[in-house]
Amino acid sequence: MNTLTKDLEQLIGRDNVAAEPEDLLSYQADATFYFARKKPDAVVLPTSTQAVSDVVAYASKNEIPLVPRGAGSGLSGGCTPIRGGIVLDTKRMNRILDINQGNLTATTECGVVLANFHRAVEKLNLYYPPDPQSMTVCTLGGNVATRAGGPHGVKYGTTSNYVLGLEVVLPDGSVINTGSSCVKHSVGYDLTHLLTGSEGTLGVITKVTTRLLPRPQSDRTIVVTCKSPAQASKTVSAIIAAGIVPAVMEYIPQSAIRGMNQYITPPLIAEGEAFLFIKLDGLDVQIDQESERIRPICLDLDVMDIRIVTNRKEADSYWLARSKLQPLLLSFMKKIITEDITVPRDKLPEFIGLLSEISDRLDVLTGIAGHAGDGNIHPTILMMEINENENQKAEQAIREIIQCGLHLGGSISGEHGIGLHKSEYIVEELGQRQVDLFKAIKRTIDPKGIMNPGKIWTEEENNA
Amino acid sequence: MNTLTKDLEQLIGRDNVAAEPEDLLSYQADATFYFARKKPDAVVLPTSTQAVSDVVAYASKNEIPLVPRGAGSGLSGGCTPIRGGIVLDTKRMNRILDINQGNLTATTECGVVLANFHRAVEKLNLYYPPDPQSMTVCTLGGNVATRAGGPHGVKYGTTSNYVLGLEVVLPDGSVINTGSSCVKHSVGYDLTHLLTGSEGTLGVITKVTTRLLPRPQSDRTIVVTCKSPAQASKTVSAIIAAGIVPAVMEYIPQSAIRGMNQYITPPLIAEGEAFLFIKLDGLDVQIDQESERIRPICLDLDVMDIRIVTNRKEADSYWLARSKLQPLLLSFMKKIITEDITVPRDKLPEFIGLLSEISDRLDVLTGIAGHAGDGNIHPTILMMEINENENQKAEQAIREIIQCGLHLGGSISGEHGIGLHKSEYIVEELGQRQVDLFKAIKRTIDPKGIMNPGKIWTEEENNA
Repeated sequence: MNTLTKDLEQLIGRDNVAAEPEDLLSYQADATFYFARKKPDAVVLPTSTQAVSDVVAYASKNEIPLVPRGAGSGLSGGCTPIRGGIVLDTKRMNRILDINQGNLTATTECGVVLANFHRAVEKLNLYYPPDPQSMTVCTLGGNVATRAGGPHGVKYGTTSNYVLGLEVVLPDGSVINTGSSCVKHSVGYDLTHLLTGSEGTLGVITKVTTRLLPRPQSDRTIVVTCKSPAQASKTVSAIIAAGIVPAVMEYIPQSAIRGMNQYITPPLIAEGEAFLFIKLDGLDVQIDQESERIRPICLDLDVMDIRIVTNRKEADSYWLARSKLQPLLLSFMKKIITEDITVPRDKLPEFIGLLSEISDRLDVLTGIAGHAGDGNIHPTILMMEINENENQKAEQAIREIIQCGLHLGGSISGEHGIGLHKSEYIVEELGQRQVDLFKAIKRTIDPKGIMNPGKIWTEEENNA
Repeated sequence: MNTLTKDLEQLIGRDNVAAEPEDLLSYQADATFYFARKKPDAVVLPTSTQAVSDVVAYASKNEIPLVPRGAGSGLSGGCTPIRGGIVLDTKRMNRILDINQGNLTATTECGVVLANFHRAVEKLNLYYPPDPQSMTVCTLGGNVATRAGGPHGVKYGTTSNYVLGLEVVLPDGSVINTGSSCVKHSVGYDLTHLLTGSEGTLGVITKVTTRLLPRPQSDRTIVVTCKSPAQASKTVSAIIAAGIVPAVMEYIPQSAIRGMNQYITPPLIAEGEAFLFIKLDGLDVQIDQESERIRPICLDLDVMDIRIVTNRKEADSYWLARSKLQPLLLSFMKKIITEDITVPRDKLPEFIGLLSEISDRLDVLTGIAGHAGDGNIHPTILMMEINENENQKAEQAIREIIQCGLHLGGSISGEHGIGLHKSEYIVEELGQRQVDLFKAIKRTIDPKGIMNPGKIWTEEENNA
């Protein structure tokens, strides 16, 4: 047993340290394709803030890189170690500490699985909207660290809109509590939101206080079949411009519907080129009115079909199918690269047109499927084969898609974060001055540079 | 004419500099009582980001303190210069640059008056919720700098929940654009929210991009007359706990109703000890349902009266009266000190009880009136006379109220910010480690310490 493992075992107990070769191997990457770099030297699974603090203080003293990790379901290589060191797995810190119905807030440990949290608040007739597709495994701490979103972002925003306060272990091991359980709070610099989306580079988030909403009384699913991607994106814009903001507005291409139909009863007629899965929520009377307003908007745009689903089982089948899209794609493809480029929602029709042009010109199979209602449609590179030529074409396509998104006033990431995967593009979006400011803030809070090094900006810049 | 004035005139034009004694005098304080410290040496009124950048670069080169200012309607001494220097008045940067109906976003210059912005978006059937009582004068830039709220915060949150991106002139004069017009954005550190609430200490906010909502179709006012403050605050908790979140839920004490009645038709019977002014908004059908659910909740708690107001003119009269409360108080009192201590909303009944105990024990007249729905009820010290004894009693009362708010898990400021007025209490809320982190961030972004010195934390700490 090496010194590092021995020291860590002494610090937080033998049961909370993993250092077998197979442990280290399984912590070398997250859910992002092919992003393993250098496996960790040890993995810790602390069960308390004190234990996290002890490990961080030890790492700081010995200048050992430390990579915090939620469920490892990230799609940007955010918790992939690049210099070895310690991976700090938070999954054992999984207690929901408080759900306050009178104040509409909750406090949890960082490792609580999102779906468990949803169930707990919904039992009390409350609602926590953020819902990344990985919600059955991903953790609240990971959601905060990556500023995670999900389909309900259209109406409800992302994790960032719900975090009120954090308990954070700073890179020297000290513990602070940012923010407040008050829904209004204006007391100095907003460290809560500085930490939200900081991808483990400024400290370890150990507790999360969120605001909650009353649970919507009801919801209704509407499926719109469109003749073309352009028609689908125009429909999205027209609904928003009419002042209706559905809870969910997902874009599904024809290619995906064929596979998804195995979950949908009755199956959708796959003649449309593009589909919108819309969910309205609120009071029944409100949903009735909004459905009746959406119908003429779609008819005016001459869509192929509108299905206002009143049967609960049928409605559920659409959302089950939607949640299966990623695994379905993986069963057909050798590799998929899910991008997170997002555009202002009024730019969606133009963006979809440009994507198709890039795809044709470079002979790369691309798919879009996702959160059309907020411009976050996850352009995806679909690879039937993996070889150098295909990889190069994919890279070129990603580069062009990013440039085209930025040109439309968009962003390189809506809800996945930057991690390793997009760090080479960040200067293009934000400019050198702003990224220099990030680095200066990082040096101030983490002068030894131990926290998740090499993320958000590229490594050579990191050393600059 | 001194060198400073001459230099500034050369930089941004003679018409955009004010340096007459009466100009300097009128920029020595904001709307906070008795907070003048040291009048500025010059006032600039730039009309462009370039001009702001030129002035800031000049101030940086010559290490001159610079205090950005919106309308000066702040209630914490946030834009009160304490070392002289330059006050940068942003009111001439008052153009609304873009209101995008398809994307539900807007971009404005920092000096746009909030009420003008409201009118502009409402014309397009859109809605921007933040609504501080000073909205006919206060500016969007000032709102962002102080993280301003308002009565609609209960349902809609504060300015912080609507800011998507900022154009900022950093303390060296360079200009960055933070955030994005995309409603989902996860690209590196959230400088947008680090700047929001930073009270001019990290840079000058020159442009603001906000998200917008569709304008609610309708609204309805409900006035509940309660037998006691405790009954009123229990009613607030019961409505929230029933899953109803009104747009506005204001607490008005009996003492205020008498004066306010001059605006209310027909006047309220001032027999109740406390009143709730509630506003529901949304679709008509939804409002109907919610009103009908609020009625039995109030009856169960045995309130004196519920008035569901269906006449628009009558409804407007309540909100007019509410907006006149502050000036009304001023016409009776020699001095009022409006505090902004906020508690988790389920702690409101307890907080109101403790306030009354403090008031009685110290023989200090206090009032509470404000945003009960989010625990932000603005405890106010009302002074009929100003002398050393009264001032000392008021100070002691404020100290005790703050301690009692913090003890209940509350915060020293919900929506006003810290400025000078509350800086001595910030360590008590956040702890020394967190305030040290603020100072380190401040030094990193503003190494010369020129931006609005002496704010948020106390001056001796500032020099530490």
